[in-house]
Amino acid sequence: MNETIEGILSHYSVRDFTDQALTENEIALLVKSAQAASTSSFVQAYSIIGVSDKKLREELSVIAGRQDYVVKTGQFFVFVADLSRHYEIGKARGVDTESLSSVERFLVATVDATLAAQNMAIAAESMGLGICYIGGIRNNLAKVSDLLHIPDYATPLFGLTIGHPTTSSEPKPRLSTDIVYHENQYQPQNMEDFKKYDATIRDYYEARTGGKRVEGWTDQIERGLRHTTRQDIKAFLASKNLGIK
Amino acid sequence: MNETIEGILSHYSVRDFTDQALTENEIALLVKSAQAASTSSFVQAYSIIGVSDKKLREELSVIAGRQDYVVKTGQFFVFVADLSRHYEIGKARGVDTESLSSVERFLVATVDATLAAQNMAIAAESMGLGICYIGGIRNNLAKVSDLLHIPDYATPLFGLTIGHPTTSSEPKPRLSTDIVYHENQYQPQNMEDFKKYDATIRDYYEARTGGKRVEGWTDQIERGLRHTTRQDIKAFLASKNLGIK
Repeated sequence: MNETIEGILSHYSVRDFTDQALTENEIALLVKSAQAASTSSFVQAYSIIGVSDKKLREELSVIAGRQDYVVKTGQFFVFVADLSRHYEIGKARGVDTESLSSVERFLVATVDATLAAQNMAIAAESMGLGICYIGGIRNNLAKVSDLLHIPDYATPLFGLTIGHPTTSSEPKPRLSTDIVYHENQYQPQNMEDFKKYDATIRDYYEARTGGKRVEGWTDQIERGLRHTTRQDIKAFLASKNLGIK
Repeated sequence: MNETIEGILSHYSVRDFTDQALTENEIALLVKSAQAASTSSFVQAYSIIGVSDKKLREELSVIAGRQDYVVKTGQFFVFVADLSRHYEIGKARGVDTESLSSVERFLVATVDATLAAQNMAIAAESMGLGICYIGGIRNNLAKVSDLLHIPDYATPLFGLTIGHPTTSSEPKPRLSTDIVYHENQYQPQNMEDFKKYDATIRDYYEARTGGKRVEGWTDQIERGLRHTTRQDIKAFLASKNLGIK
């Protein structure tokens, strides 16, 4: 096993950073790593906003549910699915830009942005930094979009906080491979298949919380289903001319 | 610069492989690497189908626009945004599963699948293998879904072909960093900003094709806008109960 795969396999999310800012060189290397990712038909349909401004970070942190590690971190990045450059090009060339509002184009931009983000995450971890994705900015995309001046045909997707960790941890056990990986055709699953994994996750939480948290994976998923959030995303995207048809 | 970042920065897509199949051990390590990626609220909302069957690969290749490297490759993977496990859990526990049909949930599954895919891509390249993403399977998602027996609340997103390369290449120059990366707020761009990059890309193609292809980046984007495809994705997703509201 090589160094890169060792790094990938030892990933865990970090939620406690020093307030040491990333250097300009570190940020440049992270952005360059992000940009090296594959991009669908070379459209490069994403942008990255680096939020260094403390007041802005605090506003984003409130939106994300008061996550301190959005404010106290090395740098906070927001990944943007971005078709606005393509819109500008179409407009300048007199080409119909209606197709930019399709779900296909939104998917392309979302996948492009996510490939770039994961490159950045892996690069950061290889530098000894810690990372955590912040889906919480989707609690209020309209506000985030306003704060960062995101144009039409573009939307923030998630944050990525990167910094010098104050704590270390270990990887959280994933679903067993035969549940996630299928040969040639999808193998449907039922509750019976999740039982062993439920026990693994219960043990994992119990050991980490000194017995305070006792919850299996299916319990976590059930809780998520009961707690319905972010039902306004479709309308917000439409207001940006994204994902309409 | 470390080995991992060196690998990330030297990425290029490979479209010519030997027919040497990946070994079981290689596939297991690639899937394990994929699973180590971050996942939103630990939902692990994706599946991976490894397509080793030659007939199946040929059918997928036709859908993707006769891309030979879908058939002649080490292994062909299809990444699936997958909320079907969550649906099964909700059903078994008597919880309302309507929220699984929201754009938010589809986004979560798409991002989860893409983070996993990029981990696999980087792991593969670190092993000396070549990779290429295959968005072409979205030319006919209904057919791909049938061929791979994908259930409701799940959809194929893209393919990832991985194998032993017969050719080598070099990274394609990306948009300049000041176009993609913004500090604290989005900086709008216009055609003037793309001029220098257009020249870079024109030179790149000219050198690689011996003068046969002379096209800037904005020309490529314009061509993409004129060639509208995959306008049926929204309806297909709805047929799978995804991204409806």
